[in-house]
Amino acid sequence: MLTPRPVTLVTGHGDLVPARDAALASGDGDLVLDRDAALACGHGDLVPARDAAVACGHGDLVLDRDAAVACGHGDLVLDRDAALACGHGDLVLDRDAALACGHGDLVLDRDTTVGAPAALDGVLGWLQGALRPPTGLPLTRSHDATITLALDDTLAAEAFRLRVTPERVVITGGGPAGVFWGCQALLQLLPPAVHRKATAAGHRWSVPSLQIYDHPRFAWRGLMLDVARHFMPKHDVLRIIDLMAMHRLNTLHLHLTDDQGWRVEILRYPLLTEVGAWRRESQVGAARGGRADGRPHGGYYTQDDIREIVAYAAQRFITVVPEIETPGHVQAALAAYPSLGVGASPGLGGPPEGGDLVGAGGTLAAGAGPPQVWTRWGVNRNILNVEESTVDFFTGVLDEIMELFPSTYIGVGGDECPKDQWRDDPRTQQRMADLGFTREQQLHAWFVRRLGDHLAASGRRLFGWDEILEGELPSGATIASWRGSTGAVTAARRGIDVVSCPDDKVYLDYRQSELPTEPIPVSIPLELGDVYAFDPVPPELTADEARHVLGGQAALWTEHADSPRTVDYLLFPRLCAVAEALWSPPGGDFTDFERRLTHHLHRLDAFGVEYRHPSGPRPWQQRPGVPGRPATRRQRAEHIARLVATITTP
Amino acid sequence: MLTPRPVTLVTGHGDLVPARDAALASGDGDLVLDRDAALACGHGDLVPARDAAVACGHGDLVLDRDAAVACGHGDLVLDRDAALACGHGDLVLDRDAALACGHGDLVLDRDTTVGAPAALDGVLGWLQGALRPPTGLPLTRSHDATITLALDDTLAAEAFRLRVTPERVVITGGGPAGVFWGCQALLQLLPPAVHRKATAAGHRWSVPSLQIYDHPRFAWRGLMLDVARHFMPKHDVLRIIDLMAMHRLNTLHLHLTDDQGWRVEILRYPLLTEVGAWRRESQVGAARGGRADGRPHGGYYTQDDIREIVAYAAQRFITVVPEIETPGHVQAALAAYPSLGVGASPGLGGPPEGGDLVGAGGTLAAGAGPPQVWTRWGVNRNILNVEESTVDFFTGVLDEIMELFPSTYIGVGGDECPKDQWRDDPRTQQRMADLGFTREQQLHAWFVRRLGDHLAASGRRLFGWDEILEGELPSGATIASWRGSTGAVTAARRGIDVVSCPDDKVYLDYRQSELPTEPIPVSIPLELGDVYAFDPVPPELTADEARHVLGGQAALWTEHADSPRTVDYLLFPRLCAVAEALWSPPGGDFTDFERRLTHHLHRLDAFGVEYRHPSGPRPWQQRPGVPGRPATRRQRAEHIARLVATITTP
Repeated sequence: MLTPRPVTLVTGHGDLVPARDAALASGDGDLVLDRDAALACGHGDLVPARDAAVACGHGDLVLDRDAAVACGHGDLVLDRDAALACGHGDLVLDRDAALACGHGDLVLDRDTTVGAPAALDGVLGWLQGALRPPTGLPLTRSHDATITLALDDTLAAEAFRLRVTPERVVITGGGPAGVFWGCQALLQLLPPAVHRKATAAGHRWSVPSLQIYDHPRFAWRGLMLDVARHFMPKHDVLRIIDLMAMHRLNTLHLHLTDDQGWRVEILRYPLLTEVGAWRRESQVGAARGGRADGRPHGGYYTQDDIREIVAYAAQRFITVVPEIETPGHVQAALAAYPSLGVGASPGLGGPPEGGDLVGAGGTLAAGAGPPQVWTRWGVNRNILNVEESTVDFFTGVLDEIMELFPSTYIGVGGDECPKDQWRDDPRTQQRMADLGFTREQQLHAWFVRRLGDHLAASGRRLFGWDEILEGELPSGATIASWRGSTGAVTAARRGIDVVSCPDDKVYLDYRQSELPTEPIPVSIPLELGDVYAFDPVPPELTADEARHVLGGQAALWTEHADSPRTVDYLLFPRLCAVAEALWSPPGGDFTDFERRLTHHLHRLDAFGVEYRHPSGPRPWQQRPGVPGRPATRRQRAEHIARLVATITTP
Repeated sequence: MLTPRPVTLVTGHGDLVPARDAALASGDGDLVLDRDAALACGHGDLVPARDAAVACGHGDLVLDRDAAVACGHGDLVLDRDAALACGHGDLVLDRDAALACGHGDLVLDRDTTVGAPAALDGVLGWLQGALRPPTGLPLTRSHDATITLALDDTLAAEAFRLRVTPERVVITGGGPAGVFWGCQALLQLLPPAVHRKATAAGHRWSVPSLQIYDHPRFAWRGLMLDVARHFMPKHDVLRIIDLMAMHRLNTLHLHLTDDQGWRVEILRYPLLTEVGAWRRESQVGAARGGRADGRPHGGYYTQDDIREIVAYAAQRFITVVPEIETPGHVQAALAAYPSLGVGASPGLGGPPEGGDLVGAGGTLAAGAGPPQVWTRWGVNRNILNVEESTVDFFTGVLDEIMELFPSTYIGVGGDECPKDQWRDDPRTQQRMADLGFTREQQLHAWFVRRLGDHLAASGRRLFGWDEILEGELPSGATIASWRGSTGAVTAARRGIDVVSCPDDKVYLDYRQSELPTEPIPVSIPLELGDVYAFDPVPPELTADEARHVLGGQAALWTEHADSPRTVDYLLFPRLCAVAEALWSPPGGDFTDFERRLTHHLHRLDAFGVEYRHPSGPRPWQQRPGVPGRPATRRQRAEHIARLVATITTP
């Protein structure tokens, strides 16, 4: 006998009660309910099946996740593989949704109208804006509309019901975000050409009769985009936001500053962009000491651009979390304001052009003059000094950042900060002594806390990489756990909120396969299946501890992605797998995902995404002769183990 | 006494009769009309002025081009410099429109509605889609709307009236296109932030009271975009289309194939894209024998992509004119189907890797094996053979092209076709003899005519570069005159339609100044003022001959524009000057344009265009050390004179 589970009830009369792990349906008053022994009933045929919730009704049918079960009125028989494909193909993300299919389609035409209460004006406008260009239909607003958006506060804010009959579509969300995700589901039910930007002739804009109830597993479903190593023009960022929305991701973590470039206008410090927003050239490939391309690179977002990006994302229920790197990864800032660096005297702090400190001891570089915006990749020795004036400088930067970004979470970096310069600098050592510290790590934690306190005073929360777990944290700090899952486990056990982004699962700059044709192959192969297996909650956590895992995010570092086309290649289709891992319950079947993805790729084609083809990179996506720096899983695991050795585990 | 001219009548009661060279306005029944002695009258003050049309009315005022004239009710006095700036800044394109300013603004708010007859559904949907994202306003449709679109068939199809009072906006066009250009004018009257894609807070969405009557000077206002040398992803092409629409350009000439790449899927010849859509590497810079970058480059549009681009453009009243190059500029096709080349035997027809035939005699290259997609820039010796099978191949290609592109005009190239291989190939010489030809040029003309006849049989017109004037033309052929204005003059005098795109005025790949920092400086400096002075009608033509000048187009060749960011830099702001030259009457004042452009650049900033800053390229827009191939105007003129020596002048 099985323990009863929360269920989704689908009656034949349109009532829907949301629940997570099972689907259940009844006909005229009959109820059948059992999770592992799934059943189906109806007015006609009966098809039982295993491990599934089941539904039937007045000719409707409902299926679910582990085994699709079907029943119907004779002319409608679904089998396992056809089940999730009951729309115009397979659905990505709605894998585990309670899903019911009915008879017949609704076809959008010139008489189709749309409607919503005033509170959903924005979503309705978005939906018209999304559907009109590809369909060419007027889709005018009406009180008694064909497609109706609605709110139901008994649902969670991001949850939605989508009910399609041959006459009507109703999308109901707990909040506007839920309605918006429901609209995205509707788009998935239409032909892939709905993702084109202009009228595609010859399409029948039909939506199958069905019901979906769905909601996300995690509140933080993110993508970190590094626009510092390679600048991405505003309109390309907006395009990435559209792709995130399509995949129901809701957090864009923008990595705005690094050694190689400062990308956001700060009014009180204009040199940050005048000087810091461009570099003379860029290293080609990942090999230490590799050649440079001799080509300047740069660009930055004005504050108006940032406001636009933030508003554009907000209209799509995506929060933009900004990150200003400190106290390492700051060479672009040092190039603009050398007084922020360690060692005021000229000759100290010059950029170690050929260096890369990962795994190396590192000695202080003796360059000439203030550093230039860095042209190499890797970990840089040049870090901030810890003067009060430097704290003031960055709290000033953060003040403008907070004005631009309404996000609760504000990133301050904190990662990969070699302490060599602090150790070797008499003035810094004096400062440590004054503050009563004996280890440079304490100074690092102190600096981060100073920024965290400043953010907290404005009601914001500091967001930093898991290195900051190595010291005492500011209250309310939230961790991005990237070096495997050690950070996530540690943070959750210490009661600290954490976002999982383990490099060995979701660092999408890592090579996509073992193929020698992968462009500039970095680190371990992260194949689609590896990414799909991502679970933000490390298995060793208890349920209580796991509540501190806010969710997860993919990361795209762009040292080797020098154009939006390359970003497309690295992100897709792996980001689809990340999105499903963050939206749906754990335990998805990769074979099933791959099958559904086949159809989803048509959507990406329509959108114009230059994804990695399942067979490997196209000839023009390759970078023959440009060295990467591949590693085996064992090499990487050993490397990460060394890095996280200093994280304090409770 | 002056000869009466056609006039624009602006009465106080809203009637408008379009005319070209003058503006006229009356109050309650009074009419004042005189071109060179401009007058203004009103109910209050009277201000006369010179050489201008004049207006007055119930407090409205109208001004015109050579002298701004103002009258009004006391509190409204415009002077010359403020006149055209009577909106929220200066207007580009509407320089010579009959323009009247009134009292007060209309401010868009949540109660603002929009309306149009069903025939304008598409334009209305576009307008909502354009205004909603930046303003965040619902702008719902209503019968008695604040912003009304209307048709008036007494106007020319592309002409429009725009009338703004504090209560209402009415945009009336001769056809939907005219309404659409009127909507673009409305956007120019709103704050520049209207060109952002998301709600920009803190803006007052006000439009000044005024009337505009405007219409384009030319029916063909184009941009040629070379997506063969460097592929431009679909979404970037759509963005260019949006920028064209903003500048009321209506023809996108897509250069889809060349030696360096074949960019359009042809179902019956899949190797054209499988093989021809990418190359191993690209020459860096313009110097003969310059280094290559070792990086593959490629990409192509599927037929669905093309349909989307065409439909997207059509919704913006832009016609896409495709071009399939023949019989030269075909090496990508030869790489895919070597049998199309001259000299069936292996060893003949290999790509002359280091060659560039411009100005050189050229000898037959003896490569090994079939040619690869070319990795060099310049004129290529490898051309098509003239077998019937080759004619069949390209008529087959054109059949698919005609199915994809509804344009009347279909480009077949015809330019820069060295005849060396034909001269040296016995089989081609035999073919010439069979056809009764004594010169290779006759064969060239014959090949072009064969394609032209095929197009004509489907009701289309051949569009080719001015080289085809060197031989007998197929009937209905239209010329793109690029080598100075010789082609335009010759064609017009021979009664052949022609589009002017003289390289020394509108080849926007040419360097933008004499500054040594211009990236990869090519040919003569084409400064903004040079481009602004562009007049598609060569002065030596009579009015009758000039009727064959359909208009003009800018050209952007992309050998040295390897990313959309570089395309932005080369196009803007010079394309703004081209647009005004094609829209407005001749004789614009550059100083005035520059002044108005200052404001227009804010619109480009909002749109996210990385234009060339008036002070020169940003550091990251430069390409230090990469050789261009600059020329003086005299060198270029001599070179062009040699090239056009064989054009037959009547």
